[in-house]
Amino acid sequence: MNTLIKRSLVRFTSKSHIFTNQCRSRATKASLLSNQLVDELSGVLGDENVSKAEVIREQHGKDESYHSGQPADVVVFPTSTEDVSLVAQFCNRNNLPIIPFGTGTGLEAGVSAIHGGVCVDLSKMCEIEVNVEDFDCTVQPGVTRIALNTFLRDTGLWFPVDPGADASLCGMCATSASGTNAVRYGTMRENTLNLKVVLADGRIIETAGKGTRTKKSSAGYNLTNLFVGSEGTLGLITKATLKLYGIPEAMVSAVCHFPSVQSAVDTTVQVLQCNIPVARIEFLDDVMMDAVNRYSSMDYPVAPSLFLEFHGSESHVQDQAKAVGELCEANGGSSFQWAKDADERNRLWKARHNAFYASLALRPGCKSITTDVCVPMTELPGNIVSTKEDILASGLKGPIVGHVGDGNFHSLLLVDPSSESELQEAKHLADRMARRAIAAGGTCTGEHGIGKGKRHLLKEQFGDVTMDVMGQIKQSLDPKNLMNPGKVL
Amino acid sequence: MNTLIKRSLVRFTSKSHIFTNQCRSRATKASLLSNQLVDELSGVLGDENVSKAEVIREQHGKDESYHSGQPADVVVFPTSTEDVSLVAQFCNRNNLPIIPFGTGTGLEAGVSAIHGGVCVDLSKMCEIEVNVEDFDCTVQPGVTRIALNTFLRDTGLWFPVDPGADASLCGMCATSASGTNAVRYGTMRENTLNLKVVLADGRIIETAGKGTRTKKSSAGYNLTNLFVGSEGTLGLITKATLKLYGIPEAMVSAVCHFPSVQSAVDTTVQVLQCNIPVARIEFLDDVMMDAVNRYSSMDYPVAPSLFLEFHGSESHVQDQAKAVGELCEANGGSSFQWAKDADERNRLWKARHNAFYASLALRPGCKSITTDVCVPMTELPGNIVSTKEDILASGLKGPIVGHVGDGNFHSLLLVDPSSESELQEAKHLADRMARRAIAAGGTCTGEHGIGKGKRHLLKEQFGDVTMDVMGQIKQSLDPKNLMNPGKVL
Repeated sequence: MNTLIKRSLVRFTSKSHIFTNQCRSRATKASLLSNQLVDELSGVLGDENVSKAEVIREQHGKDESYHSGQPADVVVFPTSTEDVSLVAQFCNRNNLPIIPFGTGTGLEAGVSAIHGGVCVDLSKMCEIEVNVEDFDCTVQPGVTRIALNTFLRDTGLWFPVDPGADASLCGMCATSASGTNAVRYGTMRENTLNLKVVLADGRIIETAGKGTRTKKSSAGYNLTNLFVGSEGTLGLITKATLKLYGIPEAMVSAVCHFPSVQSAVDTTVQVLQCNIPVARIEFLDDVMMDAVNRYSSMDYPVAPSLFLEFHGSESHVQDQAKAVGELCEANGGSSFQWAKDADERNRLWKARHNAFYASLALRPGCKSITTDVCVPMTELPGNIVSTKEDILASGLKGPIVGHVGDGNFHSLLLVDPSSESELQEAKHLADRMARRAIAAGGTCTGEHGIGKGKRHLLKEQFGDVTMDVMGQIKQSLDPKNLMNPGKVL
Repeated sequence: MNTLIKRSLVRFTSKSHIFTNQCRSRATKASLLSNQLVDELSGVLGDENVSKAEVIREQHGKDESYHSGQPADVVVFPTSTEDVSLVAQFCNRNNLPIIPFGTGTGLEAGVSAIHGGVCVDLSKMCEIEVNVEDFDCTVQPGVTRIALNTFLRDTGLWFPVDPGADASLCGMCATSASGTNAVRYGTMRENTLNLKVVLADGRIIETAGKGTRTKKSSAGYNLTNLFVGSEGTLGLITKATLKLYGIPEAMVSAVCHFPSVQSAVDTTVQVLQCNIPVARIEFLDDVMMDAVNRYSSMDYPVAPSLFLEFHGSESHVQDQAKAVGELCEANGGSSFQWAKDADERNRLWKARHNAFYASLALRPGCKSITTDVCVPMTELPGNIVSTKEDILASGLKGPIVGHVGDGNFHSLLLVDPSSESELQEAKHLADRMARRAIAAGGTCTGEHGIGKGKRHLLKEQFGDVTMDVMGQIKQSLDPKNLMNPGKVL
């Protein structure tokens, strides 16, 4: 029998709509939306779910990246898929851009309202439905990764995809997020079973079929994976059915330090070539280790390091750790620093996940131009080493961290936001990193997406003909180009 | 360093083009193609690569299913992507349907030339390129699953997706194939990194970017997974970049028999709920076991059974087998019948893979209406039991076999091809099975695809609005509806 757990969460935090009412009167400057149109929206959604307040609009036009934000003309807070559909119909009728907003934790300006319009904050939609014995759940966009895992605590299940930020799960679908556990559990692409999507004209579809939640299907076009990673440019995701996993019997984490970048990355390549199913294998360079030590009060050696985690039965975890330990040693790595109990493990991974903030703290007042690429495994050592050389030559500080088990790494280029020359230098470095990856059979982004920041690189990676094909698909589903315009294409 | 192995295979068998020259003169009946057009094609591809011979055309209009075949007007044998592009341009110019042909091992009439036109047999394109240390390969459509694995033998790598038939790997992409190993290694969806595709107007694209072969990417729309499973209706796949895996250190297979369907399937559900990473877990009902015994000279008890396989390190394989053995016993299953060495294992899986032919042999002269569905795990026991009851009530013989670890099962309904009433009864049973699956959160096909046979069920599963969306995408890429018309949509 299937145990169905269904509940509507009260969101723990909601930075977005608490100010809605008190701030509405502060709306100012020129807008695509007349007062009459705003009133029309309020009539549909209720006054409390529509805001023209400047502080709200600005909050919603900006993500966690260095990109300058651009506010929408109005922010709405629908409470159901039907509401979202009404908003889409309204925008379609009035030729207004429509920009979905989950938690604003993206890194390529996906929420920036480049051409104004209506921002749709989906955080009030908080339903969760869990099929315990089927290992699946269906969540609305107000449910974040941590909220889901907290909710699942008593079921013995968890959702492993973990980009670090406590992002909306539907937002993670929209951006094809992944993160530290992807090497073992896959990205959002492999973990999304079905999506409910509102299209540009307000039509509502389920991408895998009505209520379908199977592990596989060969029925019709794979619309699910067309919408995963489409960054709000094809439709608004209002529900996602996701795979869940049993919490492993045993979990052990460890840190290991290496004499060189090459030896740490070589170890990673060998671990994968030996079929060892590591759950996490994260690379941090010396600059990043220094930042982590300072920010999280750790005292690791300032050397290229791997943060590892093993999942499985007690004996299988021992087997894996032993085999990886031998490979580390063979490459000149240190002994493992173990984190066996949950507290130690959490401390270790908290330090890793705070790498972004730790980097910023290296240079107070700086901003980070954070960029990621992904390459085939054998190209990884060369790409990381060359990127480090580039950064060194530029004079900028730029820690490197990577989900190296997937061939995916990030650089966090720290710039003085008032220095145009530093900004240009950092953008130039990021472009070089992407072009080197593309030339090596890689991709200009493994998990951050294209947003508005990487559209020139997308063209280089795909070429004109394939870009035309993406354009044709966009045109067929959004002929007026109203869905998050200025992103991806 | 990356070891690149690149070679063009001489195909071991090629049932299709050996008769090309000697049979050309036998072409008869009315055709969409004038002699002038055929001459034009011959001018482009060479005489030896164009055939109007009836025997060739008929061979190419038919797959392994019960569906009646329909021959194309001409069959062509391109030898390069550029050739395929020229054929597509020719068809587009002359408004001719274009039907791709891999090995003809499909089960839903995907190769039937319903509206005539040009069949493109891709078996002369046989290049393989293997990046050994990156665990990936790129194959042309003439390369079959077994040919690739034979080629890989000395590298320590293999490609695990195994639908039973020795199908073309690009054809397996086109139909989103899976099979016995999917529970552990995923389907073609999870194992395809990039595709080269010729579009309806002859344009050539690479779906993940030029030469990209990374494990993940969030760059642009996921065209790769749009073409995987599109069954030739959006484009012709002329190259596929696929993931490879290290051959496991240890592999052990076993068979276990159960007192009831319910107990066998309950065991499967529990194995998955315990996170045991079985490599294969295949269900065969009593009727199928009887067929297997007769056809493959085995002497298994005629009872619902599971065929299992475990992959991993020696100790991990032992752990898995022990845990699964305990679950089997708890559900009333027999002791394991082991197959530990390669010969025994091959004999066991050959018997399993010959289930289709074994079923046909149960009723000499019959045809099998073979159909598959996929459901959430908890719905599996009920769906299989109800399907068996339906078959019993119909008076038809219909063995059931399933990749139950994915919730996917097949019935092989054996009918006298001259009996219209048996044919109708079987089709009615297949529809009932699909509708029951859809109602239970399942899909009308887990791995056989839609072809021409399941289009009515696809509509029921998705509803009109989502079907319209698929139609819009089709329209945007193939406005003249020339790519394998009459399939999927």
